[in-house]
Amino acid sequence: MEQNIFDNPDFFGGYKALRETDDNLNVLLEQPAMRKLLPNIESKRVLDIGCGAGGDCLDFVNRGAESVTGIDLSEKMLELARENCSHEKITYLRMSMSDLSGLKGGFGLVYSSLAVHYAEDFPRLMREIYALTERGGTLLFSQEHPIITATVGGGHWNYDENGNRVSWTFSDYQRSGKRMVKWFVDSVEKYHRTFSEVINAVIAAGFTIEEICEPVPDEYALQKRPELVKDFLKSNFLIVKARKLQ
Amino acid sequence: MEQNIFDNPDFFGGYKALRETDDNLNVLLEQPAMRKLLPNIESKRVLDIGCGAGGDCLDFVNRGAESVTGIDLSEKMLELARENCSHEKITYLRMSMSDLSGLKGGFGLVYSSLAVHYAEDFPRLMREIYALTERGGTLLFSQEHPIITATVGGGHWNYDENGNRVSWTFSDYQRSGKRMVKWFVDSVEKYHRTFSEVINAVIAAGFTIEEICEPVPDEYALQKRPELVKDFLKSNFLIVKARKLQ
Repeated sequence: MEQNIFDNPDFFGGYKALRETDDNLNVLLEQPAMRKLLPNIESKRVLDIGCGAGGDCLDFVNRGAESVTGIDLSEKMLELARENCSHEKITYLRMSMSDLSGLKGGFGLVYSSLAVHYAEDFPRLMREIYALTERGGTLLFSQEHPIITATVGGGHWNYDENGNRVSWTFSDYQRSGKRMVKWFVDSVEKYHRTFSEVINAVIAAGFTIEEICEPVPDEYALQKRPELVKDFLKSNFLIVKARKLQ
Repeated sequence: MEQNIFDNPDFFGGYKALRETDDNLNVLLEQPAMRKLLPNIESKRVLDIGCGAGGDCLDFVNRGAESVTGIDLSEKMLELARENCSHEKITYLRMSMSDLSGLKGGFGLVYSSLAVHYAEDFPRLMREIYALTERGGTLLFSQEHPIITATVGGGHWNYDENGNRVSWTFSDYQRSGKRMVKWFVDSVEKYHRTFSEVINAVIAAGFTIEEICEPVPDEYALQKRPELVKDFLKSNFLIVKARKLQ
């Protein structure tokens, strides 16, 4: 089972503060790209894996979803979700990504925002998601980019004499597996997988790849945070959209 | 039309010498991965885009291909091919990847080894290849990895105090387009495309992605060139296998 870092008070405090800002990378980079790739979910059942504070679940209801199931491993995140994003059509469940067998299938959309890089067994997760997806249904997930997760001990920016970011140094790309990174607290567990390992696991589960996205800042994002131009130097996120055709 | 660097005598000399070695990255890394992904081509028509000296074309005949068409922009490479890899079932044509309209379709396999990063209009190339592929046919191509092609002016290794490669520095990943690199001669023209631009162009042309491969050295390769262990730090090649289902 993945680490339950979100219930660590120090981590939770830092993470909550970050997500409450209106100019974090999720808001400016990842979320707009995910929204553009969202299929029509009117009268569809939606599963949100790693729903966190439930904002996306409420959005899915507003987009006409018949029902939304939001799962997360963190009690604290689910508390926030129940507090701020409750709706009669939304069910929040405490559940690990490592075993989805407790869920009833038939989802028209399985959605996951920046959670699957916490999953230890990604091929298994993809197979379980495939089984829970209705024929014609969509899988849409985002994760940290393999270029970011690769380096044991973390990659780093390089700067010119004026302090501008000019390049990115990484390593260990082909050595997939657990990574311990410092993020609010000392050891957050994530899993690095190469592009091909991610894409091939989605395909091996039975899905057909529809689109891959490596989001770049749009004009609004660059206006809000001009330094995000640095994101043209590398890529922060990898987004995969796939469909269950048979 | 792509640059015809292979007919530059200085480039050709250096390239020919490299390919004549038995421990270059093509032989140790790219070729074994491509062979593993090769579909059954018995009594199939095969197109080899950027066939170079024709070694693969002859191999396809030996694997039972009904006929093989090898195209290349370089007269010098085609001379080598006709000299060393002629066969009644092989037709070598001087042709640019930028316009394949001169070819008759119905290929069961369209194959391209380390050539498409020279193509200026990759989406067009994919559409033309799709039109030339028979239903059920396979597209299999390799290219330099986006992590390698990204940096304007070239990326670079970083070394520890003992001179061991420890990490890779790159930049300009999201700025796709022409790259001028020094390889045997001063300015070889290549085109950088992000992972998603490559995959999405293959899908947009109509293909279904079957497998992605980022080859790593096998035991034989590591025995032959132990320093290739460095290739676990990044990835040199991107290989895409796709099928025309409808």
